[in-house]
Amino acid sequence: MSDAETTLKLAAQPAGTDAVSQALTARYGNDLPEVGDAWNGVLANLLTHRSVRAYRPDPLPPRTVETLVAAAQSAPSSSNLQTWSVVVVEDQARKARLAEFAGGQKHIVEAPLFLVWLADLSRAERLAARSRHPDEGLRFLETFLVAVIDAALAAQNAVVAAESLGLGSVYIGAIRNKPRAVAEELGLPPNVAAAFGLCVGYPDAARPAQVKPRLRQQVVIHHERYSDAADEAGIAAYDETLRAFQRSEGVPAIGWSEAVLKRLGSARALNGRDRLVEELRALGFKLD
Amino acid sequence: MSDAETTLKLAAQPAGTDAVSQALTARYGNDLPEVGDAWNGVLANLLTHRSVRAYRPDPLPPRTVETLVAAAQSAPSSSNLQTWSVVVVEDQARKARLAEFAGGQKHIVEAPLFLVWLADLSRAERLAARSRHPDEGLRFLETFLVAVIDAALAAQNAVVAAESLGLGSVYIGAIRNKPRAVAEELGLPPNVAAAFGLCVGYPDAARPAQVKPRLRQQVVIHHERYSDAADEAGIAAYDETLRAFQRSEGVPAIGWSEAVLKRLGSARALNGRDRLVEELRALGFKLD
Repeated sequence: MSDAETTLKLAAQPAGTDAVSQALTARYGNDLPEVGDAWNGVLANLLTHRSVRAYRPDPLPPRTVETLVAAAQSAPSSSNLQTWSVVVVEDQARKARLAEFAGGQKHIVEAPLFLVWLADLSRAERLAARSRHPDEGLRFLETFLVAVIDAALAAQNAVVAAESLGLGSVYIGAIRNKPRAVAEELGLPPNVAAAFGLCVGYPDAARPAQVKPRLRQQVVIHHERYSDAADEAGIAAYDETLRAFQRSEGVPAIGWSEAVLKRLGSARALNGRDRLVEELRALGFKLD
Repeated sequence: MSDAETTLKLAAQPAGTDAVSQALTARYGNDLPEVGDAWNGVLANLLTHRSVRAYRPDPLPPRTVETLVAAAQSAPSSSNLQTWSVVVVEDQARKARLAEFAGGQKHIVEAPLFLVWLADLSRAERLAARSRHPDEGLRFLETFLVAVIDAALAAQNAVVAAESLGLGSVYIGAIRNKPRAVAEELGLPPNVAAAFGLCVGYPDAARPAQVKPRLRQQVVIHHERYSDAADEAGIAAYDETLRAFQRSEGVPAIGWSEAVLKRLGSARALNGRDRLVEELRALGFKLD
């Protein structure tokens, strides 16, 4: 059964049935949250998300990009500044070069569509230049952050839209490994940087992606004030859940804690992204 | 007709009908993109988004938070690090204090639920401390950025989920005006900061929110390489579209360009967020 078929099947079921608890079990293992009674096709679409790293070569239907961008532009934008852009990359050679910059991830080449979401302050900069108006606000970390958040909200809407069309996707944070090389490849003006990439295509049913379990809700939800009381037991339980998932996927069953410590333990594990400040400054961002 | 009813009505229509072009017209004015033929309830839900700043006092159905967080946790997470948390604020006095920190926005108090989405590196920090493991990766801007992007993807899924349940929402970026005051109010440990807030509640039909038009697609989409060729004409047309929208809303018809220039023209217009680096450092983030 394809992802889209699963979603449709879930959507057709009333709340409280096996389909809902099946979706929650895939997401939380044995640590099921008690959710509200309401259930619908949108929730089913969201809950059954999985990151897809294996794509069929099939082209996308005509004007899929325009549909995804209509969804993306419908996401909220901070003060309606719309400080993001997206580069549509379909050229095989360009995808291959970008994949090289992003740690050699093959799915970037395999997916028919690679979207590079940009934190784009240059549109406002050009606007200010045309009208001889100051643009002092552009130099702050806050404004860069607004652009990145705007891009993330937009891209996530595109992800949800893609899944509703039976397409799969995966974010590529590694596009930030080499911001200057990416900027050169895409001809970015100053004050523009790739926030992340997104592969889009039809999931290859022969190499299916599974729903990845997450931390139990008690660990991430805080009521009124922050509390770490649920941390230790929650993470221990999650390590077990993730080990079971990893065994089912045929990958080393290291759990979560070890993976997090490895990823965040050293500057070297960031694969160049420890130099992000320097790279962004070279692209024109002041980050004051 | 409520937002949820509109969504359902749109979803029931086949592609290419009036409902689709109605949704696109609300979003783009006269600059309609040519989108793909596919249409479904998820796309209708996304396209008809509007930010809601007027809420009914009605409480939310039981366990709504758990449903929204299940959607949020189903969003992609960079390397599955899950570097975000959310504080559920329902206490009226606390909402009032947070509203005060965020420029006095009344809808924070009016909405029955205020979610504060956190960039949370403290969970990984505690994990490293418990296992006496280095956590050098935490000190980089990149890692803070990962946390903010993770939080944004998660929150946007919650926004989409809320709208599917007939609820409205609006992001509150102004929660970053006073990060230290917010951190104290919410009892945040070091290496945690509020990325943004989100009001959630039933939209007040007596003060309805409208779909806000966006820039035409040619301005934000770039093919293979960045191009600003569509900028000037696209922004001029959008200024007109937005003026018409502003007139229909009974607010000053200043268009877009003027609003952007005002917002980004000076440090003062950032309402304290020009000191974000200093504030985040005080909260423990090194941002190297």
